[in-house]
Parts: sequence; structure tokens; C-alpha cells
Amino acid sequence: MPKVSSRILNMQASPIRKLAPLAIDAESRGIKVHHLNIGQPDVKTPRVFLDAFKEYDESVLKYSESQGVKETLDSFVEYYKKWNIEFNNEDILVTNGGSEAILFAIMAVADYGDNVLMPEPFYTNYNGFAESAGVDVSSFITKAENGFRLPDEDIICSSINSKTRAIVISNPGNPTGVVYTVDEVKLLCKIANDYDLFIIADEVYREFVYDGLEFTSFMHMKGYEDRIILIDSISKRYSACGARVGLVASKNRDIIENILKLCQSRLCVPTIEQIAVAKLINVEDSYFTEVRNEYECRRNLVYSALSNMEGVICEKPTGAFYVIAKLPINDSEDFIKWLLTDYSINGETVMLAPAAGFYATDGLGKDEVRISYCINCENLKKAMTILENGLKEYIKIKL
Amino acid sequence: MPKVSSRILNMQASPIRKLAPLAIDAESRGIKVHHLNIGQPDVKTPRVFLDAFKEYDESVLKYSESQGVKETLDSFVEYYKKWNIEFNNEDILVTNGGSEAILFAIMAVADYGDNVLMPEPFYTNYNGFAESAGVDVSSFITKAENGFRLPDEDIICSSINSKTRAIVISNPGNPTGVVYTVDEVKLLCKIANDYDLFIIADEVYREFVYDGLEFTSFMHMKGYEDRIILIDSISKRYSACGARVGLVASKNRDIIENILKLCQSRLCVPTIEQIAVAKLINVEDSYFTEVRNEYECRRNLVYSALSNMEGVICEKPTGAFYVIAKLPINDSEDFIKWLLTDYSINGETVMLAPAAGFYATDGLGKDEVRISYCINCENLKKAMTILENGLKEYIKIKL
Ligand SMILES: Cc1ncc(COP(=O)(O)O)c(C=O)c1O
Ligand SMILES: Cc1ncc(COP(=O)(O)O)c(C=O)c1O
Repeated sequence: MPKVSSRILNMQASPIRKLAPLAIDAESRGIKVHHLNIGQPDVKTPRVFLDAFKEYDESVLKYSESQGVKETLDSFVEYYKKWNIEFNNEDILVTNGGSEAILFAIMAVADYGDNVLMPEPFYTNYNGFAESAGVDVSSFITKAENGFRLPDEDIICSSINSKTRAIVISNPGNPTGVVYTVDEVKLLCKIANDYDLFIIADEVYREFVYDGLEFTSFMHMKGYEDRIILIDSISKRYSACGARVGLVASKNRDIIENILKLCQSRLCVPTIEQIAVAKLINVEDSYFTEVRNEYECRRNLVYSALSNMEGVICEKPTGAFYVIAKLPINDSEDFIKWLLTDYSINGETVMLAPAAGFYATDGLGKDEVRISYCINCENLKKAMTILENGLKEYIKIKL
Repeated sequence: MPKVSSRILNMQASPIRKLAPLAIDAESRGIKVHHLNIGQPDVKTPRVFLDAFKEYDESVLKYSESQGVKETLDSFVEYYKKWNIEFNNEDILVTNGGSEAILFAIMAVADYGDNVLMPEPFYTNYNGFAESAGVDVSSFITKAENGFRLPDEDIICSSINSKTRAIVISNPGNPTGVVYTVDEVKLLCKIANDYDLFIIADEVYREFVYDGLEFTSFMHMKGYEDRIILIDSISKRYSACGARVGLVASKNRDIIENILKLCQSRLCVPTIEQIAVAKLINVEDSYFTEVRNEYECRRNLVYSALSNMEGVICEKPTGAFYVIAKLPINDSEDFIKWLLTDYSINGETVMLAPAAGFYATDGLGKDEVRISYCINCENLKKAMTILENGLKEYIKIKL
């Protein structure tokens, strides 16, 4: 029998989803599992969006334009204006979620054997997309103990070689919760310029920035626009993950015209979802304020709980809805499995994502977990109590 | 400024869509353009499908399972039973249209520098997907003058080398309208077996077979199941192109488990569309009979019109809704442009797809056009008259 390709064999299974069978098993035993492993917001999707599905009234559901429906592109242009980012319809291509935008961007900048540079830990699917495209991942390390800030310029640059084509970065960061400062954003632009690289800037968590911090988009950096390929998505912003609408945008004509060929080959993004997305421009700013406040509360709750756990290291994250915590154990995956198979309090347990899957360097993150705070405060509080007690118990039994 | 990757630069722009600006221009001059260039059916989408969008009632539009929603998988399993094809839910992965299924299948079987074998002319996006994945296209030629039937075994095999990983084939064929006989399907299975290849079998036009012919699925070939990767889609079957739901299916566990990683990396297919697709199992067989009869009429109309045009060569197609015609001119693209810029009858003209874009071998198809008969008979009749007279006029002026 012929073999599957090595690029696909080399892809790792999702660290977020791979322990799912154990959770299903626990649930079938009647255990309530608090899912802190996935980034699925519990926030309500705006009514105006969901209503658009009810209002659709064509009798033939046709292909839409490969680049995206005009009204949808219009609405994205409007949206960016609020963030002081100037795009025209021609700068934007609608994609099947931010996911497809990332895959297309990597394909467009790198050939087989080229590499893309990213900070570790990174959004694990960057790795998957790169592997599937035959592109290598080059990386530099950022650390829990200093809040995952960028290291010095020379450390970053030492991971660049003649095959490096782009820096791939999420800001705010998944899985770190880091929000980069203006100086950090500038530094990456300078490096991209020095080494003639693109920057694939994934800003899908733009709205999720706390403590009154100001968000700096890579598109705000004057003079670097042609190097920036922006990745965006409505998934988290409007709690509409199941709609699968994202985009790739750039001021670089070459990039957009060539990614358009990829868009044409897969024909189009779902027509009805795009029509619904166009309505989202009517969502009021108060929606984001409310959502941000809610997540900020959850962040505070999780962070203060973690800070009080003995031996746990984590800096206060300021964005997205994730935090990485270093635990006083050797193998977080074993701990996570144990929580699902052997531990519960009043019939409830907690599921976390093992952090090793977010690193490229072997051995890193083995003592870390990623916690996503997408559930309400009441459950989050219970989940943190379970984690604290579970950790004590696990250490007592296993170490 | 850094360059875009060579794989993307090498992709050709869609031959179906690249002349669109000329059509838009003609329309802005008040000319009615009959679009015979695209495969967008005009048939009504089943009501039960469209109603599902109105009935969706969740307050958070969540990610669905990466492999597909259970009810959707169930409904596909049921559907295949009607075709005597035995699949379980575990054999199927729901994709963003047949398009994504093709890309994933190519990625899963071929590494950079490997090749996939296909008959020319082929569905042009096979080429696009292969290029974007860094995979070469190897091909053997089939000809208008003998109805695009498969050539002899030794001709097919002479295009296979040590880097060939799979045969990619659409049956019924786009752009040819060919429906392969049992013997042809068997021959390809035998070759796949002899050379240890996969077969990526694209059967999205399964329902569109005319003249009472029987359709033979690659999945009907006993003993070859592990080599077959089936591509399917609801786009044409239910005139629901804008829904973007397709699938990849195989009895080969390795293939499915590894393509699942690709599915996980892009998270999921739109949730609401999948729920709607599950309802399609309720569409009655009479729907297909009606649709097939309508297309058969159109096929008859187009074929008899083409047969009566002097110097035009084309065999009667028996499937899908396309036909390739060889015209007595040198450059069909020039002719198509001229029809849009310089010709009309009573303010109406016709748009065709230049066939060269469906071939891999340079120079082939330059005198051919692809006609898609997705418009109603009344307009089709007018379009054929315009084509006939336009062709005469063009020959008089230009040759
Ligand atoms: C950093 C980041 N980028 C992109 C995505 C992709 O999201 P989607 O494909 O739903 O737009 C995610 C999803 O979790 C993410 O965390
Ligand atoms: C032969 C063939 N395969 C696959 C497709 C892809 O269709 P979709 O992505 O809409 O399922 C098409 C569309 O025209 C086609 O003609």
C-alpha cells in the first residue's frame, strides 16, 4: 500500500484536542469536566449576526466572489478605520477563518525548505500549517518567568538564516496572553527590514486587551506596510467561531494578487456567513466593553488563584484569554490525564491543555499547562479550586 | 522587498474567471452576457436545506468537530448506501467544499517534488492545488475527437515515474463531460495496483449521468478500497455551491487519520451549513430525476447546435454539465474576448471558457472552448445562435 506523505506524518496531533477521549470518558462516568483546554468563548453571538441567517431569501445558494462578498469587504474596511488602519477593498481577501488566512500566507511567502520564524510558545496550528506546506519552523524562546516578553534583538536574529522568509506572530498572544509594547512591535519591524522578511501578523485577539493597555497593530508602523500580512478573524471578536470567516489583508499588491489565486482555486467562502458578517458593523462599541470587562474579571480570578498555588509560576497576562502556568511537576500531560481519569471533587474535574505542544524545542513546556478562561466566573472559581487541590494531591501521590 | 514564493507565482490565474473583467465591461455597456463559462447551476436549492438556516436557534455559534458534525456524517453514510457504497462515520471527513478535500488529499499523498497523474484536459484547480502544495502534475492526453475516452494502458503508464503518488480523476468529468465505463474504471485500478498508487476519485457529478448510462464509482471496485480517496461535494448535487460543504472519504485508516490532522489545524467547517446538509437526506429521488432530465435536455440542445456548426468537432458528452468543443480557429481565447468586446446580437452575447487552461501540455486546447450548460433552455438556445453566428463572423474577419 502506498504511504501517506512525510509532511503529513510529521504533523503533530492537536495538543488541545488529543486528550479529548479521556474527557469524553470522564463525562460518560458522570463527571462534570470544566473545559479550560479550548478557546471556545461562551459569550453570546450578536443577534444581528444570527438574524441574518433567518433573513436569507435567495432560492439558489450560489458561489460568491473568490475574494469575498463586496458588502463584507466594505464592512471590514469600515471596521479597520476605527482602529486607524487604512485598507481598501482591494487589500483584503475573505478566508475560511483566520486559519485559512494563515495557511495561505505561509504558502505565499515560503517554498519547500524555507522557514518562518516565530517566538515559542506559539499558536500550535502555525506549526501544523507550516509542516503541511513543507515549510520549517525556526524559533526563539520566550519565558513564563518574564511574562513571555521578546528577548533581545541578537537572540531573535540568531535564529534567522538565508532560508527565513517571514516572522509569524500573534498579538495579543495565544497561548501566552502577552500583549506586545510599541517598542516590541517596532523591534520586529526593524528586524524584518534588516533581514528582508515579511511579518505575518495575527491580530485576531485585538479586542481582548486588559488593564487599559493600548493595542499596537503592526499596521500602525509607518514605512513597513508592504512587509505586513495581516491575519484576522471574526471567530473570537464576535464569538462566532462556527461561522468560519476570517481574512488576510496587505498593502503589498504582489501578496494579495498571488493569494487571490489560492482563493480562486478553492472558489469561495460560504456565502450566507459573509452576508451575516457584513451586518456586524452595526454591533455597538459597548458590546466589546462588556465582553472585555467580563474577560478581565476572569483573568483576575485565574491569575490570583494561580498566584496563590504553591510553586506555580506565571506572570499576569494582559491579552487574549489564555495563560500559561509553570507547575511544580515534571510532566504536565501526565497530570492532565490524571485529573481526567483519577481525580474529582464533588463529581467535577478540570481539563487543561499540555503546553509542550505549543513549543518547537523538544522538552520545553513539559512542566507547563495552558489555561483558557472562556467559562463563566462561577465555574472558573470551582475549576481553580479543583486545580489547586488536584495539584497538591498529585504531588503527594506521584512525586 | 521579499518575493512571493515560486509555488504561488507559478500558479496560473483561473481560466474560468480571468476574462471576467471583459464580461463586466460588456455588461456595463448594456450588453446581456450569457455565462456559459462557469459551472454555477441555476437549479433551485432544496427548500429543506434553506429552511435549516431559518431554524437555527443557538445563542452561541460554536466551532463544530474537526471531522464534521455527527448528524452530517450520519447523513452522508445514508446517502452512500443508496449508491451501494459502504462507509462508516469514521471513514469520512467533512471539508470546505470538494475543493478543500482535493487539496488535503494531494497534500496527504505527495511530498514536494512528487507528482500526481491525471488525464488532460482536467479540472483546472487540480493543477492549482498541486502547485500550491509543491506537487507536480504528470499527465496523459485524451482527445475531443474520441470523446475524451482513456487511451491505452501503455500510454497512461508511460507518464508514471518513481515520483508518481496518485491518479487524480474526475468521473463524470469536468471539463469533458465524459463518464468512464466499468472497464475504464477497472483499468485505472489495475494501474494503481501495478504501480502502487492512490486514486483520488472526484465524483462530485455522480448524479449527472445521461442516456440511462450506469455510473461506476471507484468505490465499487472490490479489492482496491484501500487505494481510493473519494472526493465529494453537495455543491452541484443540490445546487448549494455557496454552502461550501464537501468531504473526503476512504477505507484507508492511515489516510483518514492523517488528513484529520489537517482538518484539526483549520478547526472546522461552518457549523450551520453542516446542520443544513444533514437535512438533505430528506430530499426525494424525484428531485434528482427532474434535475437530470432538465440537464439532459440542455445537453441535447447544446450538442445538436454544436454538431450543426461547420468545422466544430465534439463528441456527445454523457455526464456533468460541460462540453469541450474544438473550433475551426487558432486561438479560442482571442475569439472569446472578441465575443465580449466586439460582438452581439440584439444586445446579447455569450461568454465561454478558453480550454487551454484545462491542459498541462503547452499548446493543447488552444482551439477549444469549454461550454457549461447551467442556464435554461430558452437562453441556451439564444446563446448557441450567438455562438454560431459569432463564429462565422469571426472567421470571416479574422482568418
Ligand atoms: C492566534 C490564533 N490565530 C488564529 C486562530 C484561528 O481562528 P479561526 O480560524 O477560527 O479564525 C486562532 C484560534 O484559536 C488563534 O488562537
Ligand atoms: C470536478 C470538480 N471537482 C470539485 C469541484 C469543487 O467544488 P466545491 O468546492 O464547490 O465542492 C468542482 C467545482 O466546479 C468540480 O468541477
